[in-house]
Amino acid sequence: MAQNIYDNAAFFEGYSRLRRSMEGLEGAPEWPSLRAMLPEVRGLRVLDLGCGFGWFCRWARAQGAADVMGIDVSEKMLARARETSDPAIRYERADMDALTLEPQRHSLVYSSLAFHYLSRLDALMAQIAGALVPGGRLVFSVEHPMFTAPVEPGWIAQDGRQRWPVDSYLKEGPRTTNWLAPGVIKQHRTVATYLNLLIASGLRPFHVEEWGPSDGQLAALPALAIERERPTFLLLGAER
Amino acid sequence: MAQNIYDNAAFFEGYSRLRRSMEGLEGAPEWPSLRAMLPEVRGLRVLDLGCGFGWFCRWARAQGAADVMGIDVSEKMLARARETSDPAIRYERADMDALTLEPQRHSLVYSSLAFHYLSRLDALMAQIAGALVPGGRLVFSVEHPMFTAPVEPGWIAQDGRQRWPVDSYLKEGPRTTNWLAPGVIKQHRTVATYLNLLIASGLRPFHVEEWGPSDGQLAALPALAIERERPTFLLLGAER
Repeated sequence: MAQNIYDNAAFFEGYSRLRRSMEGLEGAPEWPSLRAMLPEVRGLRVLDLGCGFGWFCRWARAQGAADVMGIDVSEKMLARARETSDPAIRYERADMDALTLEPQRHSLVYSSLAFHYLSRLDALMAQIAGALVPGGRLVFSVEHPMFTAPVEPGWIAQDGRQRWPVDSYLKEGPRTTNWLAPGVIKQHRTVATYLNLLIASGLRPFHVEEWGPSDGQLAALPALAIERERPTFLLLGAER
Repeated sequence: MAQNIYDNAAFFEGYSRLRRSMEGLEGAPEWPSLRAMLPEVRGLRVLDLGCGFGWFCRWARAQGAADVMGIDVSEKMLARARETSDPAIRYERADMDALTLEPQRHSLVYSSLAFHYLSRLDALMAQIAGALVPGGRLVFSVEHPMFTAPVEPGWIAQDGRQRWPVDSYLKEGPRTTNWLAPGVIKQHRTVATYLNLLIASGLRPFHVEEWGPSDGQLAALPALAIERERPTFLLLGAER
């Protein structure tokens, strides 16, 4: 199974203080782009893979989702998610590298910044494709492959410009970084691999986004400008 | 219209001496990957956009294509292509930024390293989608967006590793480089834009490849190793 870094005390403590953890979906600048890829949620059966504190699950219910299942590997995160009680939201602890999903159960599978921790994404994609009803959608985000590729990632200032040196892009596999805690293990995959995994599972990509801030977001938060030099997030939408 | 750099004497002279110009398809290391994305060519009507010296047109005919049309903006390249006479191959000079194609005429549209010179790729994609028969394929390569993004592109050695600094990735538009001749103008687009252009035109991506050398190619030509750090080519296949 993938490393469960979210139950590491230092990581959890740091993660809990991120804007996206404290403010929920509105604290994540890429959320408007993800939301634009979603179908009308009312009446749908929704699955959130890597649900964390449950922000998306609660949002989906507020939009009128018929029922919502949130899956995560972290006990600490699920404990906090369960603090808000809603009989139509079920939270389950599971290793997403070895997940079995009920066939043709969901109209929407959502996942935010979780898949790049998984080792067996091909198996999970096959499960997701099987769990979707025809016409159902998978909408997910991952850390962008340009962001995950370098062995020693970091910006450099060169010619008066912030630049992001890429290496090892086609060398897929684990990368160890020190984000919030030392020794966080992520799996680097190329953009092509994410897309080909969707296609091989019988899903049809309908939108690809290498996320950067809108002009409005940039005016409100100038620090986001660096995202236009090299995006941190890759967003993908696919339909069964 | 796009810059017609191939009719620049210095550029043409330099380009003519590249392995891919002298040896044809076999001189291009990404050719085996492109070939794997092609349908069985026998009996098909084939269109090559940016046909250059006509290597692909002649290959398609040798595979039994029913007829082949090669389009290019460069008089010099077309003149050389026409040196080999085949009544089933027609070469035409045209500006691909303002091209009108016959509807439902072709089963295969191919393009190698041409689209990143064009300013109006959205209009061309719509023409291509219309020119394909249902089930027909578009297979093309472009310079990889990581390669075209930087304002001042170039490898740096850092921590004992060749690294490719990326900047301006989300700032699409013209880039001026000095490749074979000074002042070559290319259009930078993101990977997402290439894919979304296909999808918006009604084409369904079936394979994405960020090209790198196979182990066999690397053994034969060790200099290709740097391609695994940051690929130079993006290959896309889509079906109508």
